[in-house]
Formats: sequence, structure tokens, C-alpha cells
Amino acid sequence: MPPLVVAHLGPRGTNTETVALVYGEQHQERTGQAVEFFPCPSIGKTLEAAAQRLVDVAIVPVENSTEGGIAITLDCLWAAENLKIQQELVLPITHVLLSRGKLLADLTKVVSHPQALGQCQKWLGAHLPQVSLVPANSTTEAIQIIGDDPTAAAIASPRAATLFDLSVLQTDIQDYPDNCTRFWAISSEGYLAGSHTTLAFSVPRNVPGALVAPLQLLAQRNINLSRIESRPTKRSLGEYVFFMDLEASQTEPRLQEALEKLKQYTEVLKIFGSYPTKVLQLADLQHFHPPGWSSPS
Amino acid sequence: MPPLVVAHLGPRGTNTETVALVYGEQHQERTGQAVEFFPCPSIGKTLEAAAQRLVDVAIVPVENSTEGGIAITLDCLWAAENLKIQQELVLPITHVLLSRGKLLADLTKVVSHPQALGQCQKWLGAHLPQVSLVPANSTTEAIQIIGDDPTAAAIASPRAATLFDLSVLQTDIQDYPDNCTRFWAISSEGYLAGSHTTLAFSVPRNVPGALVAPLQLLAQRNINLSRIESRPTKRSLGEYVFFMDLEASQTEPRLQEALEKLKQYTEVLKIFGSYPTKVLQLADLQHFHPPGWSSPS
Repeated sequence: MPPLVVAHLGPRGTNTETVALVYGEQHQERTGQAVEFFPCPSIGKTLEAAAQRLVDVAIVPVENSTEGGIAITLDCLWAAENLKIQQELVLPITHVLLSRGKLLADLTKVVSHPQALGQCQKWLGAHLPQVSLVPANSTTEAIQIIGDDPTAAAIASPRAATLFDLSVLQTDIQDYPDNCTRFWAISSEGYLAGSHTTLAFSVPRNVPGALVAPLQLLAQRNINLSRIESRPTKRSLGEYVFFMDLEASQTEPRLQEALEKLKQYTEVLKIFGSYPTKVLQLADLQHFHPPGWSSPS
Repeated sequence: MPPLVVAHLGPRGTNTETVALVYGEQHQERTGQAVEFFPCPSIGKTLEAAAQRLVDVAIVPVENSTEGGIAITLDCLWAAENLKIQQELVLPITHVLLSRGKLLADLTKVVSHPQALGQCQKWLGAHLPQVSLVPANSTTEAIQIIGDDPTAAAIASPRAATLFDLSVLQTDIQDYPDNCTRFWAISSEGYLAGSHTTLAFSVPRNVPGALVAPLQLLAQRNINLSRIESRPTKRSLGEYVFFMDLEASQTEPRLQEALEKLKQYTEVLKIFGSYPTKVLQLADLQHFHPPGWSSPS
């Protein structure tokens, strides 16, 4: 049996790689099939690899509880013809401050991805008001940038500490304790399993009440909407595609009915599949954190 | 009369500064009052300056037609107690490639804010596949980073070409021709004028249909919803604040009625005011572009 090939955003040590490793480990335990990884430089390229069947599965971030939706993932899904969500994985985000130096007081700059800098801005303002904040394309690139400079630190994942042998100056520096990121495992081979369904649609014209009928179809059938997000169509400002996450499966008649009726009210309707969702625990992550790691929270 | 003080995100040469300059020029023409500018390092600090009445008005970006909503602006508005939207200004975004060098073929790196790099990624992939893409905290910082290096270019605004005396290697390199950014002029002195209203609310529990009643109240009164966006409450994943832009004014009885009834269905309801909206034209921008500039589109 050939190995399962898993594409993921970013180089080694990023949060998306951690989720890909957990996904791969759990797939191998369940099926016995070997797993190979295929790192990609952008979310667009990761999803393209799955759409073109160069890989079996693509792991991409969808939404962070602090920073909000990741627009490019939604836009690429809308633009693709054949991608389906297989599984949702929710990773509790732990940002750690890593350095070759040993003291906070010695630091003059902190490097990270702008999202990570944004998620730690209160902590940085309170504890390191003097440092300059330097953006990088990924948390792993941040570690390359700091190099051996003991006056520089990077914000990265706990896994990066082990992988690149750096000192952990401080753990859990994120401003909001419940900081989580949702990831999707996406494939061109969808299957109809799991309690959540994601869909997106455009409406014929932007008229009053264009959203009322779609939402009513769902509410009448007691289907909870766990998220709604409008994305610009990019044709012109003010025209939107609506993305919705529903707490129901396509195997249920109530959702099948709602989807059938929904077609009357939408211009283009895309259903990205039904899938299970799993919040990753320390036990899931134990092979990918520094030895003896336990988050203090 | 003391001058009107206008805070804006970012250093000189950014798109937000351009909008602040246009706002100031038009205010001065209309009222005769002088205008002073107060540049701020982040969206949070810009809005804080207005909330604390250190300045009269804050200019911040809200949404780009390609990249989507700017989460931090919505989050800061939700968290503030007393901020109101005075005016909406829509800026057509023109990204230009600026350098000390003269030839595309000589370039080895392109520096810009990650949003600008993202908005030009197709053009960059097609015309400069060999260059490395380097993130910066703003388009103006990108210009500082390229310095006098003729093998480096920055993506910035047309205004930056004049301000920093750089060669324009290429204009309009954005991937989508209708790329616009909406900005809001925000103040702690709100007034009820203009055709658009923005509000946000949380709902008591995330139950099926929590959004149906609010949307129905609006649709029944023929009030168009031009945008909806859910933002995480940051209390826990899956809990949202809903932001809505409405095409109606608080001076109209139909909206007053809808807002009164809306209180029944919401936990916290915040109304950020009614305001006029204006799409900036070349004539509005003529003092802030290079001499003789006319966009080719």
C-alpha cells in the first residue's frame, strides 16, 4: 500500500505542521498505512496540491478564536471545484518565547508571524515594551531570523523549542487563555460522515432579506448555525459569498431537506461536506512537545 | 479656533495616511478650521486616541474588497464604550512597485506589508517568480528596508513614489482591478447623519435561529443588509458577536422601530452610528499622487 501523502502549510515547527503530524499519527494507528508529509509555502499551494490530487489530504488553518477567520482558506475553497472537508481539528495555541539568550532584559527584538505578534501584543507591551517587533512569513522563519543572536527572541510553538534546541524564556504568552485555532483536513475525496457541515452560497442580488429565507430554512429544522462569515466576491465591493458552519450532518433528512430548498434562494451553492470535529488534548500532542511538557493552564 | 486633530494608522505614505489627508483637506475646505495629523503605530492605538479624546477623529481601515474584514478594527470598536462612525471613505487601492533600480529583471526581493503582498500574489508569481517576498509592518517600513538597494523593490501607494523619490517600475499590480479599502472616520462625538448604519450584537445563547429574528426585523422594514460578519467573542471558540452594516439611517422611523425590537433578541447591542459614505475619485486624490498621475484603469 502506498503511503498517505499529507500536505500542510509551512515548514517544520509551525502549528499547521503539528496538526498534520497528529493527523498522520492517528491515521497510521487506525489503518496501519504509512504517512508522508509534503510541506507547502502557502495556503493556496497546499489546497492546490489536494485539488490536483498530488497529495491525499491538505491540512490548513481556518479560524483562530482571537484573530478571526483566515480569508484565503475560504476564498480558495470557494474557487476550487472538488474539495471537501474530511475532518476538523482544533488546536489549543500555546505561544512560547524562544531565544539563544537567557534573560528577558537582554532582548532588543522579537520576531514572529504577524498573527502571533498580534495574539501576544498585550503580553509584549507589558513585559517587553522596549523591543522592536519584526514580522516574518512563519514562526519557523522567525527562528531562522534570530539565528544565534542572544538579544533576539522568536514567538513560536512548544514543538519548535525541541526541534531547534532553543531556550524557552516564557510559555503561554498569548493574551487570551482560550486561544484555539481550527484546522481542516481537506481532500478531493470527500465522505459524508460527521456532525458538522460547511457550505457557502452567493445570492442573486443584494436585496433586503436575502439571508432571512436561508436562515429560516435551517432554524425551522432546528439546525444550529455555529458560524457565519461574509466574504467579498471580488467582483465589486458590497457583493458577498456567505459561509456557514452547521451543527448537522448531510446524512440527516432535516439537512437534506433544507439543502434542497436552499437552492431556490441561492445563485451558486457549494457544500464542502460533513465531517467530525475533534479538540486536540495534551495526550494527542505528547510526541510533538518538548519532553516533560505540560501546559501550566 | 484650535485645529482639528486627526489620528491615523501608520507613518507617512501609507494608504491610511492618504485617506486622513483627504479627510483633512475636505474638512478644512468646508469649515475653514485648520487640521493637524497624529500618526499612530497600530489600529488599537489610533482608536484609543479617539476614545480618550486625545484627538478629534481617528481614521482606520475596516475592510478590503480582496482580503476581507480587518478584525482588529471591529474588535476595538466592540470593546470601546463611546466611539461612533462619522464618515465612511472608500479608497480605490493602487499598488505600485517602487525601487531605486530601473529593471524588473534586476530584482531579487520585494518587500511590503503581508496584505499588499497577498493582494499582488498573482502578478508577482507571473512577473517576478524568482524574487523572495519579505514582510514588513507597513508599506512605508518596506521602503526603509529596501533603502538604496537597486535589486530590491517595495509595493506601496502612488503617494509613496513622490514622498520618497523612488522610480515607479510598474503601476496597478494588484490582482483584482476593483480592489478598494473602506475606511472609517471615528470619533467619540457621534452624530446621526448619513445613509448607512453599523451595529453589532451578541445573542444570549447560540441557539438555532438566533439570527433569524434580527434579520427578519430588518427585512420586514425593507432595510438592506450590506454586510454581516461574525467575530469570536474571545470567551470561547464558537461564541460570536455579529456585525452588520445597514443601508438605512437612524433618523428613519423604520430603523428606529427595528432597533427598538432588536433589544428583545440580543444580549448586548451596540450602535456605532449613522454616517455618509463616499467613494474617493482621482479628483479627491490629486494632491497626494505624483504630478500628472492618472490611473490606467
